[in-house]
Amino acid sequence: MIDRKPSPGLDPARTNSAIRAERIGADIDALAALTEAGRPWTRRAFTPIFLEGRKWLEQAMRDAGAETRIDAAGNLIGKIAGKRPDLGSIMVGSHSDTVPDGGRFDGIAGIVAGLELARALRDQGIELDHALEIVDFLAEEVSIFGVSCIGSRGMSATRPAEWLARHNGELTLEEAISTVGGNPHESARRDDISAFLELHIEQGPVLQDQALDIGVVTAIAGITRIEIVVQGREDHAGTTPMQSRKDALTTAARIAISVEALGRALAGGAHHFAATVGEFEMTPNAANVVPAHVRLLIDARAERRADMDHFIDGLERAVAEISAATGVPAGPPHILSDNHPTPGDPDLLDVLDAACDTAGARHRRMASGAGHDTAWMARITKAAMIFVPCLDGRSHTPDEFATNQDIALGASVLLDAVVALDRKLQEIG
Amino acid sequence: MIDRKPSPGLDPARTNSAIRAERIGADIDALAALTEAGRPWTRRAFTPIFLEGRKWLEQAMRDAGAETRIDAAGNLIGKIAGKRPDLGSIMVGSHSDTVPDGGRFDGIAGIVAGLELARALRDQGIELDHALEIVDFLAEEVSIFGVSCIGSRGMSATRPAEWLARHNGELTLEEAISTVGGNPHESARRDDISAFLELHIEQGPVLQDQALDIGVVTAIAGITRIEIVVQGREDHAGTTPMQSRKDALTTAARIAISVEALGRALAGGAHHFAATVGEFEMTPNAANVVPAHVRLLIDARAERRADMDHFIDGLERAVAEISAATGVPAGPPHILSDNHPTPGDPDLLDVLDAACDTAGARHRRMASGAGHDTAWMARITKAAMIFVPCLDGRSHTPDEFATNQDIALGASVLLDAVVALDRKLQEIG
Repeated sequence: MIDRKPSPGLDPARTNSAIRAERIGADIDALAALTEAGRPWTRRAFTPIFLEGRKWLEQAMRDAGAETRIDAAGNLIGKIAGKRPDLGSIMVGSHSDTVPDGGRFDGIAGIVAGLELARALRDQGIELDHALEIVDFLAEEVSIFGVSCIGSRGMSATRPAEWLARHNGELTLEEAISTVGGNPHESARRDDISAFLELHIEQGPVLQDQALDIGVVTAIAGITRIEIVVQGREDHAGTTPMQSRKDALTTAARIAISVEALGRALAGGAHHFAATVGEFEMTPNAANVVPAHVRLLIDARAERRADMDHFIDGLERAVAEISAATGVPAGPPHILSDNHPTPGDPDLLDVLDAACDTAGARHRRMASGAGHDTAWMARITKAAMIFVPCLDGRSHTPDEFATNQDIALGASVLLDAVVALDRKLQEIG
Repeated sequence: MIDRKPSPGLDPARTNSAIRAERIGADIDALAALTEAGRPWTRRAFTPIFLEGRKWLEQAMRDAGAETRIDAAGNLIGKIAGKRPDLGSIMVGSHSDTVPDGGRFDGIAGIVAGLELARALRDQGIELDHALEIVDFLAEEVSIFGVSCIGSRGMSATRPAEWLARHNGELTLEEAISTVGGNPHESARRDDISAFLELHIEQGPVLQDQALDIGVVTAIAGITRIEIVVQGREDHAGTTPMQSRKDALTTAARIAISVEALGRALAGGAHHFAATVGEFEMTPNAANVVPAHVRLLIDARAERRADMDHFIDGLERAVAEISAATGVPAGPPHILSDNHPTPGDPDLLDVLDAACDTAGARHRRMASGAGHDTAWMARITKAAMIFVPCLDGRSHTPDEFATNQDIALGASVLLDAVVALDRKLQEIG
């Protein structure tokens, strides 16, 4: 953790914002209290505690002046009507579910910012032309059904039909969506959303390290998962001469180092790139046996597709060269999944930059290395997101932390952006 | 597998040996039949099938003219009295237990060679001055009690006292030794053995690759086990910039490559050296998480202690350098166990070389990378061993294979050596 200039977060005296950090803090505390007992902070989608969280959120939405409903995809939506129903909605939100042993901010900060934004508009007596919708997307995290972004994929009509048959041992996803109040057989696709904005904790250290308040997200990185299998030969570690071996480990080790080197080279530029060997499984993994087999799983993330293409090309060459040099067969990289980057909407990014300036937030543009509901919403509307700093870049752990002031400053940026968009969306049609 | 000049193994026409390969084959087949049902070839020490194997062996020893007994350490011994009881015994043998899913030859070949040697002496009407003892050491392989060489450590009075309390869930080793007919509270130490010889399959590819018949074992390598722990930091693989990570995997990968390089450099000379990272355990081992922790277990084997000392020094330096370069903490190499090499007795090695020439066996001197009962017998007597070729160097697997002819040629070498030692031991006192 490097030194950071003290960040005041939201400074009402300076920005004259109607956003109030203490209300944000109270909301976060209230939701944090709704956790699996003895396992803070766990509120996995579809579980009883998740439904309790939703009940609380529903009331909070109503208290903020919204009408609530569950859409067909199982998303909880609070809507405040606009003056011109023909213009459709501006939607803000994120997700209230957590990973097991997760945190209090990932997803939650974005919903609470939406609630506070609605309250701040009401406090100021501002009525928008567009309707304002606050959304809690269903199951953004990898759920008990093994898949993620169930709600935003439902709303963007990108939820694979076969997902409904997924079974968690007790019930199917089809049944689970009904249980939370959705209708798995009805389309949840929306064509009346004019813009979508999401506030989220960064889940990385960049804002903290650079003493900034807001990251305006240029793109949600594409994620490519690549498997490589190294097939050596099981030999007696004591009796097999060094030069007669086909050691899968030392070939796989060279591949792991090469993944890191390729990743670093591509990360050296202005655009986000990261490559990680996250899984590395060796067999037989016995003290006196030369390793016979290693499976590597690579997670690569690129803000720009061209970088990912370069990475895949470079990886293929590197694996072939390493295998030729060591004499240990290594299968060519096998792409298991390959999602392209989702750029933020350029108009929204400009509005968000301007809103940062208005709110007095120190900001930069940056990519998101993690996936978000925004990536799916971008399929059906203009979508963008902002990051607020999180302590040491940590997330998906009980240590995950963001200050109420930082979230409030982000909410203030959202507020300014929504008000600006309410006009601007009418201009750009 | 490289081309090999056809090896005739034992060629009775050329050597005029009384050793008969078909009797060896019959013995090996008879013992192979005594395996755990459906899991060839498994005859783990202390199990009912092991005791059946011993019953068979006891009868075979008697048929070869020996008197049998179980010593206090649980070893099965067949003894043929010599003409001069004051001279003590020449002992030959190995072990009849196998690893799970093991082979038909590891250990067994050495006992069967001993049996055939006794029969050949009787066929020729040769009576030795020394007694001849054939031994089946108890539990040479890692047993159900988690330790190995129980019998030879008993006979050499090197069996740790605390081993008796070891428990396999059903009984203690103390009870188990009684079960096989030993007496755990009585010393099994022998001071009347003038020489010990063991025939064993090589468990490596050198004899096959060099088209040789016999390896005269210069030394049983010392085995040193070394643990290294790399402690990185768990981070989100998507959001944590490449330059901000502490990736335990890529540091551990550099260490594994360095172990191989150090091992190759030391193996380049005339003396056996091997170093292997056999265990490599990474956590959290999740696709989207930067690896936080890797534990490496190194198995290093040296014919000469000086090589092992060089290896340990070089490894300590390499780990410190790698850790300094990557910035990821890696604990200094931690030595878990450290056994020094056991050289073969020089007099016996000369006798064995000469016996190879007499038997017409193509031979070389070589080290044993694997551990053997001979290493323990060397504590109490002149001891040495010979290797016979095994197919593709494979052992501890159902594929393990050695030809009856190759074992017979080895037995013929043992026969010549025993006859020569019967005189020579009286000369050298």
